[in-house]
Amino acid sequence: MKLVVIGGDAAGMSAASQARKRMGTGELEIVAFERGRFTSYSACGIPYWIGGVVPGLDPLIARRPEAFREAGIDVRTRHEVVAIDLRRREVTARDLEGGGELREGFDQLVYAAGAVPVTPDWARVDAGGVFGVQTLDDGAAVQAWLDRDPAPRRAVVIGGGYVGVEMAEAMVRRGLDVTLLERSPQPMSTVDEDMGERVGKAIRGLGIEVRTRTPVRGLETLDGRVSAVVTPDGALPADIVVLGLGVRPNTALAAESGIPLGVTGGIRTDLRMRVVGPQGHVDGIWAAGDCVQTVHRVSGRPVHVPLGTHANKQGRVAGINIGGGYATFPGVIGTAVTKVCDLEVARTGLTESEAAQAGFEYVTAAVESTNRAGYYPGAVPMVIKMIAERRTGVLLGAQIVGREEAGKRIDALAIAIWNRMPVEEMTALDLSYAPPFSPVWDPVLIAARKATEAVHAAG
Amino acid sequence: MKLVVIGGDAAGMSAASQARKRMGTGELEIVAFERGRFTSYSACGIPYWIGGVVPGLDPLIARRPEAFREAGIDVRTRHEVVAIDLRRREVTARDLEGGGELREGFDQLVYAAGAVPVTPDWARVDAGGVFGVQTLDDGAAVQAWLDRDPAPRRAVVIGGGYVGVEMAEAMVRRGLDVTLLERSPQPMSTVDEDMGERVGKAIRGLGIEVRTRTPVRGLETLDGRVSAVVTPDGALPADIVVLGLGVRPNTALAAESGIPLGVTGGIRTDLRMRVVGPQGHVDGIWAAGDCVQTVHRVSGRPVHVPLGTHANKQGRVAGINIGGGYATFPGVIGTAVTKVCDLEVARTGLTESEAAQAGFEYVTAAVESTNRAGYYPGAVPMVIKMIAERRTGVLLGAQIVGREEAGKRIDALAIAIWNRMPVEEMTALDLSYAPPFSPVWDPVLIAARKATEAVHAAG
Repeated sequence: MKLVVIGGDAAGMSAASQARKRMGTGELEIVAFERGRFTSYSACGIPYWIGGVVPGLDPLIARRPEAFREAGIDVRTRHEVVAIDLRRREVTARDLEGGGELREGFDQLVYAAGAVPVTPDWARVDAGGVFGVQTLDDGAAVQAWLDRDPAPRRAVVIGGGYVGVEMAEAMVRRGLDVTLLERSPQPMSTVDEDMGERVGKAIRGLGIEVRTRTPVRGLETLDGRVSAVVTPDGALPADIVVLGLGVRPNTALAAESGIPLGVTGGIRTDLRMRVVGPQGHVDGIWAAGDCVQTVHRVSGRPVHVPLGTHANKQGRVAGINIGGGYATFPGVIGTAVTKVCDLEVARTGLTESEAAQAGFEYVTAAVESTNRAGYYPGAVPMVIKMIAERRTGVLLGAQIVGREEAGKRIDALAIAIWNRMPVEEMTALDLSYAPPFSPVWDPVLIAARKATEAVHAAG
Repeated sequence: MKLVVIGGDAAGMSAASQARKRMGTGELEIVAFERGRFTSYSACGIPYWIGGVVPGLDPLIARRPEAFREAGIDVRTRHEVVAIDLRRREVTARDLEGGGELREGFDQLVYAAGAVPVTPDWARVDAGGVFGVQTLDDGAAVQAWLDRDPAPRRAVVIGGGYVGVEMAEAMVRRGLDVTLLERSPQPMSTVDEDMGERVGKAIRGLGIEVRTRTPVRGLETLDGRVSAVVTPDGALPADIVVLGLGVRPNTALAAESGIPLGVTGGIRTDLRMRVVGPQGHVDGIWAAGDCVQTVHRVSGRPVHVPLGTHANKQGRVAGINIGGGYATFPGVIGTAVTKVCDLEVARTGLTESEAAQAGFEYVTAAVESTNRAGYYPGAVPMVIKMIAERRTGVLLGAQIVGREEAGKRIDALAIAIWNRMPVEEMTALDLSYAPPFSPVWDPVLIAARKATEAVHAAG
């Protein structure tokens, strides 16, 4: 039997590894095509590499092609799959170095082509200095541009989401003057406005100029390089422009070959990561990672959430099933965390606007507490916000903004949401307490109490 | 209506405050008797005060008697209740300063007398320098002893539980030579032996001499002061001895007055914290805090878990119910956390021996991972152990030993246990990920995967 994998990053290589673990080389041949030079790397680590927090590119690579080859997985880097023939069960791949094309038949196919940065028409200029940050190769290109002589001095980052904010901080660390442009009223619009305000303040505290409600009209170029970003308020000089406008599923090839896409543009799969078409799942065709659509367990809606943690899990699930085991990926609840300087920002479940869109009536409660007992050295403020359904009081979403030891607490709230806990039951939770770790009333408990009162008050 | 509260710390004063919040002074008179000088303080903070981590006693006091009095709660410190007449609904209190006795009638009574240190016969010597560490007054006595001239040089701490270990570290910080004596094979026997070994190593790393499997035979005294601790291996010179042998519910007065005790020696209550007798709950008699027995939600067994976090919750629940509201305390799951130097130790649910005692067949899985992505600066090792029921795979217990950002992660596992999650479902949890916060496979997910494999293997 032969398994072909399209895409050699988290999802694809997790699938390949799990299938290999369960079936020997005599039973299953595995060929993986990867467009870039690297396999299984941490794209999330790129801003830290560029900012000099992580020394070099090597640490970001979890597993190199040679390691996979030794494990009996035939990885072909710099090979782009350009066609899939589902009827003949065959892919066509182009050798990006040599230029030739080859065909490879398959019994099982894993489509794990990832995502591509959203690139508006105005960003498609024929000039250097404009970058998306999606792959290690992208990261290497940014590094090379920053190392030019004379070095770029002014950076404009477009888009204030996770990648935008992280890249803006990285550029500051590299000594550049940084402007962050965001179309909405605040950066980090993945959290509610009241929480995002705190993030905006922290970003400005880094010396980053933040311009909100500022759409981009276009880019100016000079001598083949970007020179400015045009906004309604005028042109901002820029020696480097980073696009942080989000990503979309990389599904052009899938769509061409007849693999159906969902409403989010991602590939639809069942719980076992089998591609789903109008007549149910398609035998032997799997998809995983940033190219798939999944379900939000709180709203019940289809969503596209490109994150390494989901890609790894989905790839693993596909691989276990291909190898004859049983595993499922039951969806996501929108958990995310990041750090801006020493500010930690985390979310899980639905934000207020997401809850409203899903049709929930809800109440909110935000409390300010501390990460340690107030009297214990190093105690710093932390805000926890909860969003609970009206009447049932079921926790729908939570957000945390704090400093050290704040962000990772979101996991406790994520597990509460996963289990559909009412906030009133949460007031009784047996959470850990000792003065170096929390006040005697843990911030989660205080927030649950306040949210319970809000549920009662709303009736 | 009149409410009398016995005990002015976390449980008693939480009850009083909640009742007051719901009923004005015209509706409800509240009298609270407290043996000591302080109200609502953090006993858990005492080791940090003694160790000089927290400057002075003041920060440990959450709310002083005067503040309660201003809020319409008649707090009488240095008053010990010496008799309760349930038939007449009246208590007798002794003024520990003036010496007189007074009687106070009540309609509602909250018994919140806390716990008392376990003090074996050999520890009842008529000599200075031997201390339990249960109240702020105890802490003040230790401070005074350490401040003597000449200052004590050699400390022996008896008992390697939370208080023993924390006090041993505090004594090291004060510059004393410290020996920790523990009867069992390892200190911190609240975690399994494989995890406790790591704790033992950390304690020794502080320069503390740890003697395990070492029972104490007696104390030697000289000129009215303790001079040595006698063990089977000989006498250990000591200028100060700290007892960390645990506490038992302070229920002598309750028992004398006919309030029935449970099998753990603690007072039995229902979910609303009403005292329960042979004929069901006793009207208007409530109990909360370190003196009550509660239920372990995983084993289903009665347990006595004296912890400030439970005391606060139980007191609050009693107070809400007294005030005409509705609240319940549904039991505990054994969550706890502490810190030894920079080692963080946490547990929740059942340990292996507790699971076996409860009748569970179980599997275990321990994984070593890191608190951050391996390549991110400051990544340090962390071990997570899971105990899951055979067949169902339901998570029964979890333990964490790590360094920074490790201990508080136990809350996520506590909420999983609270919700009876099977470890296989936990492999799909949507936990937060970013390189400064965790590897792309969060340690909890890795542990859940390994525990799932163990469940499958056990059949």
